[in-house]
Amino acid sequence: MDLKMIDTEETIISREYFLGIIADFKNDEFERHPYDLAQELVELRETNEDDYEYICKKMPSELLAQILCEMPNYVQEEISDVLSDKKIANITSKMDSDDASMLIYNISQNDEEAAETILSQLNEEDKKTIKHLNSYEEDEAGAYMQNELFKVSLDENIGDSLKRLKQLKEDDILDNIFHAHIVTVDNEYIGSIGLEELILFDYTLKYADLPEEKFTNYSLNDKEDIEDAVDMFTNYNLSALAVVDSNNKLLGRITHDDIHDIIQQIDTKQLYSLAGVSDDAEHEESIYLIGRNRAMWLGINLITAVLASLVIGLFDATIQSFVALAVLMPIVASMGGNAGTQTLTVTVRQMALGEIDYQDAKKIIYKEVMISIVNGLLFAAVIGVVAYLWFNIPLLGVVIAISMIINLFSAGFFGAVIPIILQKKGIDPAIGSTVILTTVTDVVGFFSFLGLATIILL
Amino acid sequence: MDLKMIDTEETIISREYFLGIIADFKNDEFERHPYDLAQELVELRETNEDDYEYICKKMPSELLAQILCEMPNYVQEEISDVLSDKKIANITSKMDSDDASMLIYNISQNDEEAAETILSQLNEEDKKTIKHLNSYEEDEAGAYMQNELFKVSLDENIGDSLKRLKQLKEDDILDNIFHAHIVTVDNEYIGSIGLEELILFDYTLKYADLPEEKFTNYSLNDKEDIEDAVDMFTNYNLSALAVVDSNNKLLGRITHDDIHDIIQQIDTKQLYSLAGVSDDAEHEESIYLIGRNRAMWLGINLITAVLASLVIGLFDATIQSFVALAVLMPIVASMGGNAGTQTLTVTVRQMALGEIDYQDAKKIIYKEVMISIVNGLLFAAVIGVVAYLWFNIPLLGVVIAISMIINLFSAGFFGAVIPIILQKKGIDPAIGSTVILTTVTDVVGFFSFLGLATIILL
Repeated sequence: MDLKMIDTEETIISREYFLGIIADFKNDEFERHPYDLAQELVELRETNEDDYEYICKKMPSELLAQILCEMPNYVQEEISDVLSDKKIANITSKMDSDDASMLIYNISQNDEEAAETILSQLNEEDKKTIKHLNSYEEDEAGAYMQNELFKVSLDENIGDSLKRLKQLKEDDILDNIFHAHIVTVDNEYIGSIGLEELILFDYTLKYADLPEEKFTNYSLNDKEDIEDAVDMFTNYNLSALAVVDSNNKLLGRITHDDIHDIIQQIDTKQLYSLAGVSDDAEHEESIYLIGRNRAMWLGINLITAVLASLVIGLFDATIQSFVALAVLMPIVASMGGNAGTQTLTVTVRQMALGEIDYQDAKKIIYKEVMISIVNGLLFAAVIGVVAYLWFNIPLLGVVIAISMIINLFSAGFFGAVIPIILQKKGIDPAIGSTVILTTVTDVVGFFSFLGLATIILL
Repeated sequence: MDLKMIDTEETIISREYFLGIIADFKNDEFERHPYDLAQELVELRETNEDDYEYICKKMPSELLAQILCEMPNYVQEEISDVLSDKKIANITSKMDSDDASMLIYNISQNDEEAAETILSQLNEEDKKTIKHLNSYEEDEAGAYMQNELFKVSLDENIGDSLKRLKQLKEDDILDNIFHAHIVTVDNEYIGSIGLEELILFDYTLKYADLPEEKFTNYSLNDKEDIEDAVDMFTNYNLSALAVVDSNNKLLGRITHDDIHDIIQQIDTKQLYSLAGVSDDAEHEESIYLIGRNRAMWLGINLITAVLASLVIGLFDATIQSFVALAVLMPIVASMGGNAGTQTLTVTVRQMALGEIDYQDAKKIIYKEVMISIVNGLLFAAVIGVVAYLWFNIPLLGVVIAISMIINLFSAGFFGAVIPIILQKKGIDPAIGSTVILTTVTDVVGFFSFLGLATIILL
C-alpha cells in the first residue's frame, strides 16, 4: 500500500533477490513482512514477467500462501496462468478461510474452470468452507468472515481451553486471537471475553462460572450488510465481531484489520461514484474495459449537455443581438455547477458517515440554501459589476446578477435535496447524483440568464 | 455514527430517559455503550438545550467521562459553557490520556481561558501528559497516542507482570490491552509480545528469557506523520503501534480503533478537497464560517470562468455569424470537464492508496491518454453527427468533432499530469487540482471549438 515501507532505492528487486528470500525462509532466518514481499513481487511482475513466474514456481507454498493473500486482486486473478492447479490448491489449504475464499473467487473471475479444479483438489472441509464463504453476496457480512476463531464451551475450564489454544497456534491453525468466543453445546453464540480479561481469572474456573458482565456480545447476522459491521467496529471500537446465522449459531468472526480495507473500499467507491467512475471497472487490467465504463457516464453527460444546449437554442435570436450573452453565459452555469458540487459532496459524505440522516433533511436544506443565497448575493454583486464594466451595458450586469442568485440558490437547494431523496429511496446517493445536479444547474443557469436577458434587454 | 444502532423509533430521548440511565449507572445496572448514549445526548442537545445542560450537570463524572469522549468535537468545544471547570477537570482526570488531551484541545478552541483553568486543576502528572500530547502538530503520530499501555521490563517475570495488569485493570487505568510492551531499565523500547503469545509461556519465565522471534517490533517516531501510522496498521494488520521518541524511548501507543477514524478523516478531507470544500470549515457550527470558506473556492472558480469567457470573447465575431456555435460550445467544455474529473479523481485516489506513485507516472499518463483518445473519437463521432443533423451544416459537425477529440485528449492528459506534478512537488494533489483542471478543459474546449470554427466555417 505504501512504498515508504520498502527501500526501493536500496534493494534491487530481481530473481536473485527473491532466491535469497526463499533461502532465508528455508533456513528459518526469514524476517520480512509478507506485505512488503507482496509489494516487491508485484514490482518484479511489472519489470520482468519471466522472473516473476520463475520465482512463483520456486517459492515454497507456505511462503507464497502468506505473500499471495497480500497481493492485489488482479494479480491473484492471474495466478492460475502461472502456477499449476495442484500448487495453488496446496497454497490455498495453507491460508485462512477468508483469504482462501478470496483467492478462489479472484481466480474464478479469470478462469472459472481452474477455480473448480483447484477446489476439487482441496479436502472436503476446506472445499465446503470456501464454497460457503463464496456463496455470500459482496455486501454481506458473511463474505468477509473467517471461520478460524478461538471457540470455547461453557463447561470447559479456562486452563484447558488455553492449552487447546496453544496447540491450535502451534499448528498454525489460529492467529490474531483477541477473544474466546463462548458457545453452548449446540454452538449457540453466548458472548465473547477478551484475552486481557480472561487471563486475570483463576484458570480452574469454567466459562460458565465467569461473571456475565465480563462478556461482550457484539455479533452480526451473516446476511447483514458489511457496512453495518463497519459501523459496529468504528462506533464500539471492536477488535473482532462474531458472525452468527439466523439461529444465532456462531459461524465465524470478522477482525479489525479487515475493516480498515473495507472502509477504504467504501470511501473509494463513494469518491469514484461522485466523479462518474466505477471502482470495479477501474481495477480492470484492460484499458478498453476501463474506458468503456467511463464512456457510459460521459454518454449520460453528453445527453444532459445537449439538453442544456437545447435551452440555449431557445434564445438564439437574443444571443444574435447580444453576443455578450454567449461570452458570459458559461460563467453562470459554471458557478452553479461548482456551488452545487460543494453542497452535494458534503451532504453525501455526511450521510455516509452517519453525521446526518433523513430526519435532519429540513435542517440540511435550510443550511445549504442559506449558504447558497449569501454566496449568491456576493458573487451576483461581483459578476454584475464585472459584466457592466466589461460590456458597458448596465442592464447586462443586472441580468447576470439576478441569474447568478437564482442559479446558486437552485445549486444549494438541489445539491442537498437530490442525495437526500436518493438515500430515502434506498439508492446510493453518490451514484449519478452529480449528473442530475449539473443538469439542473446548467439548465437553470442558461435558462435564467438568457431568459432574463430576453425580457430585460430586448 | 449510525442511527441503526439506536432505536430512535422506540426510545424517546428526554430528561426523564437520561435520569433513568443515570439511576441504572448508580445501581450498577448500566449496560448501554457510551457511544450510543453520546448519540442520544447530542440528539437531546438539539431538541432541548435546557434538558441537555440539566442532564450534563446531573450526570456522574465517571459516566460523563465515557460519554463525552464519544461526542463530536463541536459538542466537546462547548462543554465549558455548560459545566464548571472543576467538574470538567474531574471528568478529564477519568479519561484516557488521548481522549483527555483531545477534550482539552477542543475546549481551548472555544475558550482558551477555560482550558487553562481546567488544566490547572489537574494533578501534575495528568497536566504534564495532556500538555505534552497537545504540543504535537495535528499530523504528527504523537498527537494520536495514549500513554496508558502495559509496559514490562526484561527482568520481570510473566506471572508478576500479569498480576500487575490485573491490578491496573481493576483500577480502571488500563483497557484494550493487546500486547505487553517490553522496555529496558531506562525505558528503551525493545519489542512487543501479543497476549495471545504471552499466555502460552510458563509464567515463571522472565521476558528476557522469551524467544525473540515472538516479539513484534512495530514502532513509529512521535514526530512522524500519522499517515505513516495508518499505512503500518493497514499494511501489517496491527492491533497497536508503539510510539517512541528520537532516542527510542517508549512514549505511548496508538490502537487500531483510532485508525478507523483517522482513515475516514483522511478520506473525507480528500473528497472535500476535490470538491473545493474544507473539512475543518464544514464542521464549524456557524453557517457564515462554512459559507465563507466555500466562497473562497467559488471565487477562484469565478476567476477561471471569466478567463474562459475571455477566450470566448476573442471569437464574438464568429459567434455573431454562427449562433449555432454559442449553442454547441458548452457541450465541448462540459465533456472535457467530466472526462478530466474522472481521470483526476482516479489518479488522486490511487496515489493516496499507494496503488500508484511517481515512478508509474509514464504508465498512468499513457493509460489515461489512451482512454481519452478512444472516448474522444467515440463522442466526436456522436456529437459530430448530432451537430450536423441539428443545424444541417456539415462543416459544423467536423469542427465540433475535432475539438471534442482535442479537449478529451487534454482532459485525460492534464487530469493525470496535474495531480502527479502536485504530488511530486509535495503539495496535496486533491487540493485545487479540480479548479486547475476545469480551467484547462474550459479554455482548451472553447478555444479549440471556436478557433476551428473561425478557420473552417468563415
